[in-house]
Amino acid sequence: MLNLTTIQEARQRIAGRVHRTPVFTSRAFDEAVGCRVFFKCENLQRAGAFKARGAMNKILSLTNEEHGRGVVAFSSGNHAQAVALAARDVGAKATIVMPQDAPRAKLAATRGYGAEVVLVERANNNREQVAREICERTGGVLVPPYDDYLVMAGQGTAGLELLEDAPDLDALLVPCSGGGLFAGASVAAKAWRPEIRCFPVEPATANDTQQSFAAGERLATPLSPSIADGLLVQTPGVLTFPVTRQNAEQVLTVTDDEIRAAMRFLLYRLKLLVEPSGAVGAAALLRGKLPPDIKTAGVILSGGNVDAEMLASCLN
Amino acid sequence: MLNLTTIQEARQRIAGRVHRTPVFTSRAFDEAVGCRVFFKCENLQRAGAFKARGAMNKILSLTNEEHGRGVVAFSSGNHAQAVALAARDVGAKATIVMPQDAPRAKLAATRGYGAEVVLVERANNNREQVAREICERTGGVLVPPYDDYLVMAGQGTAGLELLEDAPDLDALLVPCSGGGLFAGASVAAKAWRPEIRCFPVEPATANDTQQSFAAGERLATPLSPSIADGLLVQTPGVLTFPVTRQNAEQVLTVTDDEIRAAMRFLLYRLKLLVEPSGAVGAAALLRGKLPPDIKTAGVILSGGNVDAEMLASCLN
Repeated sequence: MLNLTTIQEARQRIAGRVHRTPVFTSRAFDEAVGCRVFFKCENLQRAGAFKARGAMNKILSLTNEEHGRGVVAFSSGNHAQAVALAARDVGAKATIVMPQDAPRAKLAATRGYGAEVVLVERANNNREQVAREICERTGGVLVPPYDDYLVMAGQGTAGLELLEDAPDLDALLVPCSGGGLFAGASVAAKAWRPEIRCFPVEPATANDTQQSFAAGERLATPLSPSIADGLLVQTPGVLTFPVTRQNAEQVLTVTDDEIRAAMRFLLYRLKLLVEPSGAVGAAALLRGKLPPDIKTAGVILSGGNVDAEMLASCLN
Repeated sequence: MLNLTTIQEARQRIAGRVHRTPVFTSRAFDEAVGCRVFFKCENLQRAGAFKARGAMNKILSLTNEEHGRGVVAFSSGNHAQAVALAARDVGAKATIVMPQDAPRAKLAATRGYGAEVVLVERANNNREQVAREICERTGGVLVPPYDDYLVMAGQGTAGLELLEDAPDLDALLVPCSGGGLFAGASVAAKAWRPEIRCFPVEPATANDTQQSFAAGERLATPLSPSIADGLLVQTPGVLTFPVTRQNAEQVLTVTDDEIRAAMRFLLYRLKLLVEPSGAVGAAALLRGKLPPDIKTAGVILSGGNVDAEMLASCLN
């Protein structure tokens, strides 16, 4: 179940173990987009992304016996770090299946939290299968990146906090990959303020949610590249997609160049490092992709984990 | 006069016109330096630096008649933007004398606030004289970058806020150029907590305060380069130096490479863009330059205005 109650329970469960991140505003950004914008700074979250919320909620819900068997996850990066961090917090072993081309900073950070990392080629697209095999072999508990109600409720706490700090939002923009953050945050936001208009944002080259939303059913898109390395899933989640269908007004997409421009604005003007996947909401606003009658928008800056190489490539 | 009362008056005067900036902490940074650290984020201040505090306090203290004559300043960058911003807020014309090699972002931002910029060569070292000539010709009021009690009291409000948020600091590290921020912040900190140990930090290549502190009198050092472009004065201020002599335990210096390493840590781990001049306190801590018995340190991250070129040069 995903509703305001399970999101509030998540908040109580994870309180003190994740940050209540600040909400930033910027006159320069507001002037650039002609709209009052409230940024929920999940780049300042523990382990550098909102993923700590869902992983913590899931892992804290497990029994001591389950903790003893360990947790397993598959992830391109931020979920990996989040599960590693949450597992370390409760003293459980974490095994994380990651793609070989994941950003080096994310690999290093995951290992830094004490997790064992198992690398697979991204093209194989078998990370989930590898993770499930590890679970069968070891008895470990899988912590899914999005298709899990406890994970979705955990991510939703970011939306709950944003609406508490900025209660009068006309719209909410949320980076969308598997859809866990959008599902959780949109449920929280609409419970708080039923008239809020919610927009998932994804890369133009990985617009599986946009295509699925238009078709009214989960479609699979080809694997294609984007600098938004955290948003490269090929199909929406089984549990998340019905929530997206219900809560999204429209699915927005942004190009890599639009993402880079948004990253530079956030860096040079707001002084915040936001990763490409985390900057898609700001990118959509800067390019005027929201309906013009929206005067107040909340944007989740979902993470800040950037490689030196990637950052250099975004500064040109 | 510079004391707790004038700093508190400054705070009342500038309230609502400058940000009460947040104080950040980082487990990663604390572990790296073996000390609990509280960062006062003046890089998130209006116009990107603490300078908005002093300029606002000075300009709000002027009469309407003085506002009508306009304000004049000389600055390598952040003070320029701050005076331009404060002047715009009160509807006064600002004329700013800047060196030709000031970071482009600072030139553009100063003009963006509506100020007239007069460029002079840095080597001529005649910026103050040019500014004074403009004042004589136009009747404008000079807003000094540091040697002015209202400016110093304004900068001191950053120290006051930091001690309110982190009242148990053993030490305070403050970037030092002319000494206005150190003077104001150290007076505020010692009024709040007399036993606090205060450390100005400056570039090793521009250590006029360190040399002057050792000699017990204001000495002039040769002009020499550093990436900390905001800290390149050649002699401490007439009004600030007596405060530095009284309040500093020791003057610390850092190299350009140490500054770059600190900028990278702040960027990649805390997700904060801090300019070279603003990162000297963090650099001193990361290189273990504080006495080892200090367990809790406050660090003023004084600004965040960085050119794309300079940032690129710091990421390698």
